[in-house]
Amino acid sequence: MHYTEVENLATTITIADYLFHRLKQLKVNTIFGLPGEFNAPLIDKLYSIQGLRWAGNTNELNAAYASDGYARLKGLGCIISTFGVGELSAINGIAGSYAEHVGVLHVVGMPPTSAQTRQLLLHHTLGNGDYTVFHRMATEVSCHSAVIVDTDFCAQEVDACISKAFTLQRPVYMGIPVNLVDMPVESHRLNQPLDLSVPPNDPNKENEVVEQILSHFYKAKHPVIIADACVTRHAVDAETRELCERTQFPLFVTPMGKGAVDESLPQFGGVYTGSISSPSVREVVGFVDFLIVIGCMLADFETSSFHFGYRAKELVLLYPTLVKFKHATYPDLNIKPLLQSLLSQLRESQLSYHTQPRQSMVIPKLELPSTHSLRQEWVWNQISQWFQERDIIITETGTSAFGINQTHFPHHTLGISQALWGSVGYSLGACLGAAMAATELSKTHRVVLFIGDGAFQLTAQELSTMIRWRLTPYIFIMNNQGYSVDRFLHSNASYYDIQPWDYSRLPEIFGAQDYESRKIVTVGDFQSMVKDPNFANAERIRILEIMLPPMDVPQALRERWVQDEKRELERRESVESVKRQKLLPPR
Amino acid sequence: MHYTEVENLATTITIADYLFHRLKQLKVNTIFGLPGEFNAPLIDKLYSIQGLRWAGNTNELNAAYASDGYARLKGLGCIISTFGVGELSAINGIAGSYAEHVGVLHVVGMPPTSAQTRQLLLHHTLGNGDYTVFHRMATEVSCHSAVIVDTDFCAQEVDACISKAFTLQRPVYMGIPVNLVDMPVESHRLNQPLDLSVPPNDPNKENEVVEQILSHFYKAKHPVIIADACVTRHAVDAETRELCERTQFPLFVTPMGKGAVDESLPQFGGVYTGSISSPSVREVVGFVDFLIVIGCMLADFETSSFHFGYRAKELVLLYPTLVKFKHATYPDLNIKPLLQSLLSQLRESQLSYHTQPRQSMVIPKLELPSTHSLRQEWVWNQISQWFQERDIIITETGTSAFGINQTHFPHHTLGISQALWGSVGYSLGACLGAAMAATELSKTHRVVLFIGDGAFQLTAQELSTMIRWRLTPYIFIMNNQGYSVDRFLHSNASYYDIQPWDYSRLPEIFGAQDYESRKIVTVGDFQSMVKDPNFANAERIRILEIMLPPMDVPQALRERWVQDEKRELERRESVESVKRQKLLPPR
Repeated sequence: MHYTEVENLATTITIADYLFHRLKQLKVNTIFGLPGEFNAPLIDKLYSIQGLRWAGNTNELNAAYASDGYARLKGLGCIISTFGVGELSAINGIAGSYAEHVGVLHVVGMPPTSAQTRQLLLHHTLGNGDYTVFHRMATEVSCHSAVIVDTDFCAQEVDACISKAFTLQRPVYMGIPVNLVDMPVESHRLNQPLDLSVPPNDPNKENEVVEQILSHFYKAKHPVIIADACVTRHAVDAETRELCERTQFPLFVTPMGKGAVDESLPQFGGVYTGSISSPSVREVVGFVDFLIVIGCMLADFETSSFHFGYRAKELVLLYPTLVKFKHATYPDLNIKPLLQSLLSQLRESQLSYHTQPRQSMVIPKLELPSTHSLRQEWVWNQISQWFQERDIIITETGTSAFGINQTHFPHHTLGISQALWGSVGYSLGACLGAAMAATELSKTHRVVLFIGDGAFQLTAQELSTMIRWRLTPYIFIMNNQGYSVDRFLHSNASYYDIQPWDYSRLPEIFGAQDYESRKIVTVGDFQSMVKDPNFANAERIRILEIMLPPMDVPQALRERWVQDEKRELERRESVESVKRQKLLPPR
Repeated sequence: MHYTEVENLATTITIADYLFHRLKQLKVNTIFGLPGEFNAPLIDKLYSIQGLRWAGNTNELNAAYASDGYARLKGLGCIISTFGVGELSAINGIAGSYAEHVGVLHVVGMPPTSAQTRQLLLHHTLGNGDYTVFHRMATEVSCHSAVIVDTDFCAQEVDACISKAFTLQRPVYMGIPVNLVDMPVESHRLNQPLDLSVPPNDPNKENEVVEQILSHFYKAKHPVIIADACVTRHAVDAETRELCERTQFPLFVTPMGKGAVDESLPQFGGVYTGSISSPSVREVVGFVDFLIVIGCMLADFETSSFHFGYRAKELVLLYPTLVKFKHATYPDLNIKPLLQSLLSQLRESQLSYHTQPRQSMVIPKLELPSTHSLRQEWVWNQISQWFQERDIIITETGTSAFGINQTHFPHHTLGISQALWGSVGYSLGACLGAAMAATELSKTHRVVLFIGDGAFQLTAQELSTMIRWRLTPYIFIMNNQGYSVDRFLHSNASYYDIQPWDYSRLPEIFGAQDYESRKIVTVGDFQSMVKDPNFANAERIRILEIMLPPMDVPQALRERWVQDEKRELERRESVESVKRQKLLPPR
């Protein structure tokens, strides 16, 4: 039966209905944002479509973060904001989705076309009659943008916007003037599913690259596979797994790739963070003769925020649409068909690699008496044992982003972090989005957030939206009284202190009926929490305040500090040399 | 004694010190923002300068709102954010300052120049090596922008940035790479105060305009003066007052100009809101033969957000740097010297206008028994009587923005609202900024905020910063269970509902030691609150939750609704006509 028949649609529907049906077809069931004068008629339409819901966020930046978190689970997210004030409030979140390859459709309700053409000075404008300024700003952080004005081609444009956001995994900006939401389009277009397939590669180019890679695969004695963030974003999880299983090559993930591969695979060795990797990781990766990175996110793998210092002679980088091999660059190669071709041509019998004694992931051990106060090192070790299959684990920029790398993820665990863009406060919004998405997936998932107290304050009100929807995430607030990472890396300046809040009582203030709050001060508190069998069931929202010393940080951060100190010395020397060059005249 | 001697400065100081000393000279004593990796070395310098303080906000959007509120009292505000994530989070607030003519210096701590020139892929970048993208976006909402890179001219550039923000009353964007904060400059430049004077006008052009205006002044029988927002922003308060007193012309303010003139002047008649003005205002303004608007903010006065419909045959509009007179436009005329010239040439004896029976401002009366639940109409009337001289009164976009127009401001009251840009949640951030500024002014001021419950949720955490600084504003939360203005103007859709919070207990959660919370449900509750003599003393922070029916709105809003209904009808007709034009083929 055709979609229009199933949904019982009239021959002609409005463009707003068309948009929402397209989103529904892609299982984008929750739409984030806030209402405003210029988008309310659009949101009205959403309510009439069964299976869609309006999240109703507390502010637009949080809504953008939520759409991003949602999209990381469902492949596409959508936020609707209002012209000017709303869209600009969201733009930092959208920029994060752009940097981190997340498919988000940003729909902006715009003033009526009549006001725009007559340059009327409505509110939410800069008062200068310029109605295109916010669109111009958005194009800097979008892979595609359009304002729906052409009455004849509006359905095609909606299709283009959605397809691009989905296939390119980047934000798309789509403006809809408020007077055009009722514009009629033919519903039968909905019976043709959107073409979201990745186009095939040029077979000659693809074969050239596959042959080159395979020849190195076959002769490598000490190979390593590293999975980066775009394995998940561009849906090559299955191909990556097959490659690992068939080659048996040792496997690592980048911090952004954590959760992209099954960590219970026997050859999984942990998180590779360049020069600050744990000794056991460095031991393996330091001696490779062939290294392939699958699903690279960064344009230049060697200089990421985590200071990847490794430069293998035989290094292959597979980006979403590009391959780098030693000094050569092969543009316009889509990763999915490329990997499929690689797998079909791979002959295991020709591999020289012999499976070596497993360098399985090492989780640091630290024994502490039950009355002892908590330590980051100990907490991350313990929490790792509490994780379950299918957990969705979200970490904030800060100590959690480092701590999580020393945990072990059970099978089918999904990791969410914003390691490149690193917008503080992101994870609470993303947690809302992920928790909404989790309720829409077929299997049950627990949603687990780790966030610092400093970061929590930036976006705290989104907790209220979680409560409103009776979502049941675990929110671990790592309370170290301020911005510990900065404090550790920069100085113990008073501007890293924050106002102390009574976090555990926030759910009550935000109207929660069924919730649990715990303040975890000692090792014993923590142990009795994770041993409680009821605690494993995600049946209510939980605030778990983990009290940590202000200057206690995970081991990886300590390593980074040593390196930063070195760079700081270099910086001072460079300033001194500028000072010397610029001899001030005597006075 | 020279500034450098008073401050005991070395011959050579750093560019960061130079910047902060310049701000100190202009009495910008509080700097807003959040710390980050790329701005921390800059903020460090601030701490070494006596008389400056770092506010330490909870997020960057709130910090931008706070800088704006601070600048509206002190002429200039400053926010320091970090590259990418921080600056984009703030950009909606900066756009508001741009739209509403507020002088804010936005200082952005950038990655080191070495990383920029080598296009390293640090965090807080889009991952594509483009380090200028955020600067490009900022130029859309700034009157001037610069990145401090030239070691020889950096002091000049800092001076230019500050002067432009101050004199043009618009945001200025200034990036400082983190490795350049120690760049040496000569301190003796600080002994020369910044030139913040408004340049004189071309005397011929100025005289032509002054003569024209005066000739209309002299022959007008029914003249009116309207003061708009730029009276305060461009500091022509004294000139406007003198003009009113010497001509005795009836005087009104626009909503954005409320607080710009002394409402105890006998000829003050209230707020002119175009076609939705109160009948007593319309009665006067409807019959004028000459109308002068001083300090216009909008490029086109007749089509503002408040639907000014008035088109006087003899209409003079004085913009900050432009005069419009009937159909003529005179560019490049600064308002301050123009008004001064007008005043010096004005001869009262030649005026035809005879002072008429005063149309003093009418405050609607409504008697309610003490057990009655509250009504917007009644509350605004009562609160008006509680206002004191020198109060700083801040209103949020929403019912408060309409309600405040029916109150009477005592002498020296300052009004803050964001009527053009209208970013919901602005007023709580602005309240922090205004409260910080108020503590720095010579006289004592009470800071009074009116904000809806819906708006409060967007920026709620900034209450924590007020508590941290032991500020003592009155925060009236007009609790009508959601977005009443939109509900009233658009529909009673469920997306205008919000999660109910226990607002009165938030100060406790945010760590307040000394605070007062009241939930005001009945007329009697309200009366006993305002009659309490202790309540008049702003000695602690107060949350006053005013419980109002969801669909109860001030009278002015009702009037607007009637007009919007008319427009909605027109909109539907236009959609219908498009539908008719676009005949779909039969299927």
